[in-house]
Amino acid sequence: MTLRCSLRLFESNWMQIEEYLRRDDRIVLPTGSTEQHGFLSLGTDAILAERVAVEAAEPLGIPVLPALPFGMAPYFAAFPGSMSLRMTTYIEVLRDLLDGLAAQGFRRIAIVNGHGGNAPVAGFIREWICQPRPDRVQVLFHSWYNAPRTTEVADQFDRDQMHGGWVENFKWTRVAGADMPPDPKPVIPRNLVGQLDPAQVRTAAPDGMMGGAYARPDEDMQVVWDAGVAEVRALLETGWLS
Amino acid sequence: MTLRCSLRLFESNWMQIEEYLRRDDRIVLPTGSTEQHGFLSLGTDAILAERVAVEAAEPLGIPVLPALPFGMAPYFAAFPGSMSLRMTTYIEVLRDLLDGLAAQGFRRIAIVNGHGGNAPVAGFIREWICQPRPDRVQVLFHSWYNAPRTTEVADQFDRDQMHGGWVENFKWTRVAGADMPPDPKPVIPRNLVGQLDPAQVRTAAPDGMMGGAYARPDEDMQVVWDAGVAEVRALLETGWLS
Amino acid sequence: MTLRCSLRLFESNWMQIEEYLRRDDRIVLPTGSTEQHGFLSLGTDAILAERVAVEAAEPLGIPVLPALPFGMAPYFAAFPGSMSLRMTTYIEVLRDLLDGLAAQGFRRIAIVNGHGGNAPVAGFIREWICQPRPDRVQVLFHSWYNAPRTTEVADQFDRDQMHGGWVENFKWTRVAGADMPPDPKPVIPRNLVGQLDPAQVRTAAPDGMMGGAYARPDEDMQVVWDAGVAEVRALLETGWLS
Amino acid sequence: MTLRCSLRLFESNWMQIEEYLRRDDRIVLPTGSTEQHGFLSLGTDAILAERVAVEAAEPLGIPVLPALPFGMAPYFAAFPGSMSLRMTTYIEVLRDLLDGLAAQGFRRIAIVNGHGGNAPVAGFIREWICQPRPDRVQVLFHSWYNAPRTTEVADQFDRDQMHGGWVENFKWTRVAGADMPPDPKPVIPRNLVGQLDPAQVRTAAPDGMMGGAYARPDEDMQVVWDAGVAEVRALLETGWLS
Amino acid sequence: MTLRCSLRLFESNWMQIEEYLRRDDRIVLPTGSTEQHGFLSLGTDAILAERVAVEAAEPLGIPVLPALPFGMAPYFAAFPGSMSLRMTTYIEVLRDLLDGLAAQGFRRIAIVNGHGGNAPVAGFIREWICQPRPDRVQVLFHSWYNAPRTTEVADQFDRDQMHGGWVENFKWTRVAGADMPPDPKPVIPRNLVGQLDPAQVRTAAPDGMMGGAYARPDEDMQVVWDAGVAEVRALLETGWLS
Amino acid sequence: MTLRCSLRLFESNWMQIEEYLRRDDRIVLPTGSTEQHGFLSLGTDAILAERVAVEAAEPLGIPVLPALPFGMAPYFAAFPGSMSLRMTTYIEVLRDLLDGLAAQGFRRIAIVNGHGGNAPVAGFIREWICQPRPDRVQVLFHSWYNAPRTTEVADQFDRDQMHGGWVENFKWTRVAGADMPPDPKPVIPRNLVGQLDPAQVRTAAPDGMMGGAYARPDEDMQVVWDAGVAEVRALLETGWLS
Repeated sequence: MTLRCSLRLFESNWMQIEEYLRRDDRIVLPTGSTEQHGFLSLGTDAILAERVAVEAAEPLGIPVLPALPFGMAPYFAAFPGSMSLRMTTYIEVLRDLLDGLAAQGFRRIAIVNGHGGNAPVAGFIREWICQPRPDRVQVLFHSWYNAPRTTEVADQFDRDQMHGGWVENFKWTRVAGADMPPDPKPVIPRNLVGQLDPAQVRTAAPDGMMGGAYARPDEDMQVVWDAGVAEVRALLETGWLS
Repeated sequence: MTLRCSLRLFESNWMQIEEYLRRDDRIVLPTGSTEQHGFLSLGTDAILAERVAVEAAEPLGIPVLPALPFGMAPYFAAFPGSMSLRMTTYIEVLRDLLDGLAAQGFRRIAIVNGHGGNAPVAGFIREWICQPRPDRVQVLFHSWYNAPRTTEVADQFDRDQMHGGWVENFKWTRVAGADMPPDPKPVIPRNLVGQLDPAQVRTAAPDGMMGGAYARPDEDMQVVWDAGVAEVRALLETGWLS
Repeated sequence: MTLRCSLRLFESNWMQIEEYLRRDDRIVLPTGSTEQHGFLSLGTDAILAERVAVEAAEPLGIPVLPALPFGMAPYFAAFPGSMSLRMTTYIEVLRDLLDGLAAQGFRRIAIVNGHGGNAPVAGFIREWICQPRPDRVQVLFHSWYNAPRTTEVADQFDRDQMHGGWVENFKWTRVAGADMPPDPKPVIPRNLVGQLDPAQVRTAAPDGMMGGAYARPDEDMQVVWDAGVAEVRALLETGWLS
Repeated sequence: MTLRCSLRLFESNWMQIEEYLRRDDRIVLPTGSTEQHGFLSLGTDAILAERVAVEAAEPLGIPVLPALPFGMAPYFAAFPGSMSLRMTTYIEVLRDLLDGLAAQGFRRIAIVNGHGGNAPVAGFIREWICQPRPDRVQVLFHSWYNAPRTTEVADQFDRDQMHGGWVENFKWTRVAGADMPPDPKPVIPRNLVGQLDPAQVRTAAPDGMMGGAYARPDEDMQVVWDAGVAEVRALLETGWLS
Repeated sequence: MTLRCSLRLFESNWMQIEEYLRRDDRIVLPTGSTEQHGFLSLGTDAILAERVAVEAAEPLGIPVLPALPFGMAPYFAAFPGSMSLRMTTYIEVLRDLLDGLAAQGFRRIAIVNGHGGNAPVAGFIREWICQPRPDRVQVLFHSWYNAPRTTEVADQFDRDQMHGGWVENFKWTRVAGADMPPDPKPVIPRNLVGQLDPAQVRTAAPDGMMGGAYARPDEDMQVVWDAGVAEVRALLETGWLS
Repeated sequence: MTLRCSLRLFESNWMQIEEYLRRDDRIVLPTGSTEQHGFLSLGTDAILAERVAVEAAEPLGIPVLPALPFGMAPYFAAFPGSMSLRMTTYIEVLRDLLDGLAAQGFRRIAIVNGHGGNAPVAGFIREWICQPRPDRVQVLFHSWYNAPRTTEVADQFDRDQMHGGWVENFKWTRVAGADMPPDPKPVIPRNLVGQLDPAQVRTAAPDGMMGGAYARPDEDMQVVWDAGVAEVRALLETGWLS
C-alpha cells in the first residue's frame, strides 16, 4: 500500500488522478444532506461524511470526491434551510456519477453516507451493480454513523443516538451562537417520525432534535469519531470482493 | 368495528367499495416479487404478501388490493423466471396507485410487503407522504416477514431465516415435483449477496436458496404464519396516527 | 409439442422454467386492469385475461406470468376501487418485463390483454420490437375479448358487447351480493365515452355499465369463453413468424 | 358562425388569435410523420394532415397550428429519411402543447392525425382529458384517412388502401422524378407488418409500398379528398359535447 | 460537389435520400418556435429558419428536414398562440431525431436555429456528441439570426435588433391586416426580459415587440437576408472538422 | 442593510435561517463542476464559485448554500477525475432546489455559476420562473468569471482567458506538486472545442489547458478576483426587480 498525504480530489489535478489509476482503482464518494440538525449545522451530514471519508482514506492514498451536499430529506421541509432531492432525481445523480467513474477506470467505489434518508438509494446501487457492463465494478454503500462497530462504541456512552443529538455534536458541526439545552429530552420513536408530514415533524420536534442528550464531552466524541474513521478505513481496505 | 367476510377488492364491485368508504378509509396493498426462491414458487413473495394481508384484513373488513406481483430483484436475473422493475419504474407505479387511492378518499393505506428488494421504495413513500395535499393520507410500509414479532416467533425455531429457505416454505409456496435437500446448507452472508452481480449470485447459490434449512414441519410453519397474520392485523388496527 | 399440466409461472420454480427454456421460448403475460365493471368484480379484466391465458396455454405447456393487475383506466377514476397507471408508467413497466424476458432467453412473448384502455401500449411494443437487439424477439399483443373469432361467436348472441355488460359476466367475475337489473339498458356510444372526464363518465353511466344486457345464461357464456380460449391457443401455436 | 379567410396560425399574429379567442375556443393541431411512403414524399402524412385540416377549417375560421412533422414510425427506420419519436417523447410533446393551449383559453382542440403509428397516443389524450383542471377542455383525436365516411368513399374505388399506395397518392404528395410501377402488387397483411423489425419490413416491402395499386386518376383522388375534408369539417362543427 | 435543385426532404422520397447518402452525409434540421412576434407571424422563427436553411442548402444539394415548429418560449405564454415545450421535452425530441439520423448514416448534421429560446439545447447537443458511438457524428448548432457576419451586416442599418422588430420583418413573416406603428419604440433590455414571468413580459411589451424600429425597406431586408443565407451556406460547406 | 459575519449555510443552523427569513428573502447557490483544469484543481469551478459567492455575500449577510460540486462537462470525460451530470439530471436537481427554496420563503435566489458548461441550464431557470406559483420568485443566473466588469478587468492583463489558464489560476485553485509550463501555448478556438468528442478534446489539449498563459503574478490575480467579488456583490444588492 502506498502511503500518501491527503488525496481529496479537489486537492488534485487530473494528471495525479490518472497516475493514481495506474496503481489503484478505488475512490470514495461521500453523500450528505443539507437539513436541519437542531442546534447543529445544517450541513452536519455532509460535513461528517466528507470528513470521516477523508480521514479514513488519507493513509491509504485513496482519493475522496467532494461530498454530494444535497440528499433526500422531505420530512424536514418545514425547517428553513433544509433542502431535498426527490428520489428519482437522486437516483439519476448517482447513476451519472457511477457511470462516469466506471468509464474512467474506477472499479471499487465506496459511497460513505452520512444521512439516513439517503439509505434507500442503496436499492438503486444494487440495480446499477447488476446491469451488464464490460468490467465488473463494485460499489459499497456504507452509512458510517450507524455501522456496527461505531454504534457499539457509541452505545457505551448512551444508547439514545438521535438526529441532531449528542452523537452528531462534534466540534466541526457546531455553529457559532447556538446554545443548547443542558438536559436531555424524551426520545421521539423513529417509527413515529416516519409517518409524519413536514408540519407534524416540526410540531413533534420543535427544535428539530429528536431526543436524548444534546451533547457529550469532546473526549467522548473523539472516541466515537475514531471508531467511525477506523470502520470506514477497514471497509476501504478489506470490504471488497477479490 | 364492522366484521365482514372476505373483502379482496377483486371479490367486490365498485358499489361495495363506495359503500365501504362511507364508514372506513383504510385499504391494503400487498407488494410481492416474481423471482427465484430456490425450490419454492417463483411467486413466493407475492403469494405470501397477498395471503397474509387477506387473512389479517378479513375480520376487520378492510379491502385488500391484488398483490403487485413484480418488484425489484435485479440480482436474480440469472435465474429464469425472475422479473425485475427498475427502481424508477417501481416508484412511478406506487405514485400512481397512491395518488389514485388518495383521490378516491382512502386516507390510511397499508402496504404489506413480501420482498426485501422492495424495501428501498419506503424512501419514496416517505417523499409522497411529505408532499402537500388537501387531506392528510397515511401510508404504512410493513415488511411482514421480518417484522419484530414475527421474527421473534421464527427465531424460536431457527435463527437462519434466509431467502428460499424454511421460513418461506409454506404449503402454499411449494410447487409440484420439487424435492428439496433434507439437510441445511451454509448461510451466505447477506452483505456478500449485496455486492454480487447476477452471475455471481448464481454461482454463490447454485440452487437459489441462501442457506440454512430448506423446510420445517407444517405445524411450526403455522405458528410463524399465525404470528405474521396477527402482526399485520395489529398494524391495521392500531398502527395509525390519530 | 410437450403436453403438460398447468404451468402458471407461480406454480413453478426457476429450475422448471430453466428446463422449459431448453425446449421452448414462448411465454404469456396477461394484462388486466383494476377498475369498475358495474355490478361485476373490480378485477374483471385481470381475472379474465389471466384465466383465458392459462386455459389456452395449459395443453401447450407454455408458462403464464401472473396478470399485471393494474392498467390504464383514468376515465373510471370516479368509481371507487378503480386504479390507473399513467401511460408513461405503464410503458416503463412493460419495458422492464420485456427486457427481462428477452435477457433470459424468451423469444416469443404473447401479451394477452383483457382491457381496452391498455391497447395503446401496443404502440410501445412496436417500438420495443424495432429496437436493435442481438436476437430477434417477437411480441404479440392480443386483446382476447374483441379478437375476430371471439367477437363473431359473441355476435351470435347479442351485438351489444359493452363494458360491464353480459359479455364480461362469467361465473368467475360475479361478486357475492350483487343483484343486477333484469333488463338491458340503452348503449352509450363508445365515441362519447372517449370524450368524457371521470365525473361525466359517472353521470353518463351511473352504475358503471355501458349498456345492453347485464347477463346471459351460463351456457351461452361458456360458448363465448370457449371461443376466446381457442383463439388465444391458436395464437400461441401459430401466430408467430418463423 | 364567423366566416373568415384562411387562418393558418402561421398566417396570423398573436393579436388576431387573441381576438379570435373572444368569440371561439376551437383550434386544430395536425399531426404527421416524416417517414418513407414508397415513391411518394417522405412528408406524405404531415402534408395531408395539415392540408386536410386547413381546407376543413377555413370556412369555419378556426385556426390551424403547423403540423407536428415528426411522429412514431420505428418500423420504417431502415428506409433513409424516416424519423421517429419514442412514444414517451411523443407523449411529452403533446402534453406540453395541450397544456399550453388550455392555459391560453382554448377549450376544444381537434387533433387531425395523418399517421397510423401515432394512433396509440390517443391513450395519453384520454389520460390528459381525465386530469383535474379548472375548466373542462375537450380534445378530439381524428385520423382523417381512415375515418368512417372517407373510408366508405375510398372503398368505392378500391378496398386495398395501403401505406404508400394509391390512397395517399395526391398531386401534393408526389415528388419530382419518381416513376411508379403501373401495376398493383400483392397486399402485405397489416398484422404481419406489426410483427416485423425494421430490416424485416424493408425485406417485406422493398420499395416501401405495402400493396395494392400505386395510383388512381386525379379525379378519383379528388373525390376521396373532398370526403376527407368534409368529414373533418363536420367534426369541427358538430363533434363536440355541449 | 453535386449541384441539385431543391432538396427539401418533404419534396423527396426515401429512395432519393438513400441515393444521396451514397455520396454525402450532411443534413439540415431547422428549429423554430411558435410564439408571438408582435405584429409579425406567430411562426416567424420557424419560417425564417426553414427558409434560410433551404436557400442555403439548395445549391449544395443537401436535404433539409421540415422545421421543428415548436420550441422553448415559456415567457411568451401570456400572448395567445404562443406554444412552448419544456426543456426536458425538447431534449428528448432532439435526442430521437439525432439518434435516428445517426442510425441511418448521416454523419454531419447542421441544426439551423431561428429562436433564441432554443439556444440552451446546445448543451444537450454537446452531451450527445460526447456519448460513445461506433461512428463519429458531428452536429453543428447555428443560430442564423445572430451569427457574426449576419449581425455585422444588420448592424450597418440599425444596431437595435429586437424580438418582433425590423430585423425579423420580411415579406414572408408579415401577416395580412396587421398595420405596424411607423415609429420605433424604446428598447427593453434583454437582461430585464430574462427575469420576467409571462404576465410581466406582457406588461413590459404590450404589443410583444421588444423595441427599436418595426420595419425597414425591403431592399435593406434583402441585404440582411442574403448575408444570413450566405453564412449558413458557408457553414454547410466549410464548418465541419475533417 | 444588516451587516453580519459569515453566513455560509453550513455555518448556520435552521433557527438562524428562519430568523434571517424574517428580514430578508435572498439566498445564493454556487454551482461548480468537478472536471479537469489542466494543472489546476479538479474542483476549480466549484472552489471559485463558492468562494466568490461567500466573499460577495458576507458583508450583506446573505446565506450561501454549499456549492453544487458536479456540473455538465461531458467533453472532459477522457481526463480522469472529471465528472458530469446529464442535462436532464442537472435540470431535476435545480428544480428540486428551487422548489424547496421557494417553499421555504426565499423569493430572490442568485445562482453564482463557475462553469461554462452549466450555462445552458439558464434555459430551464427561465422555464421555472415562468411557471405559475402563488408568490413571485426571482432567480438570477450569473456566471461570475465572464461577467462584463470582471472580463473588462481581466482584459487589461491578457485577453486570452481560457479553460485551465491564468485566469483560473489562484492560490486557492493550485494543487501541490504541479509545476506549470512557464510559457503560453496557442489558443484552441472555443468553437472547435464545441465540436470535439472526449477523445478529440484530449488530443487537442493534451494537458487539458486550452491556451494562453498558465499563470500571472498573484497581485494581478487579486485585481481580477476583487472585480469578480464586487460584481457578484453588486448583483446581490441591485440586480433584482422591485
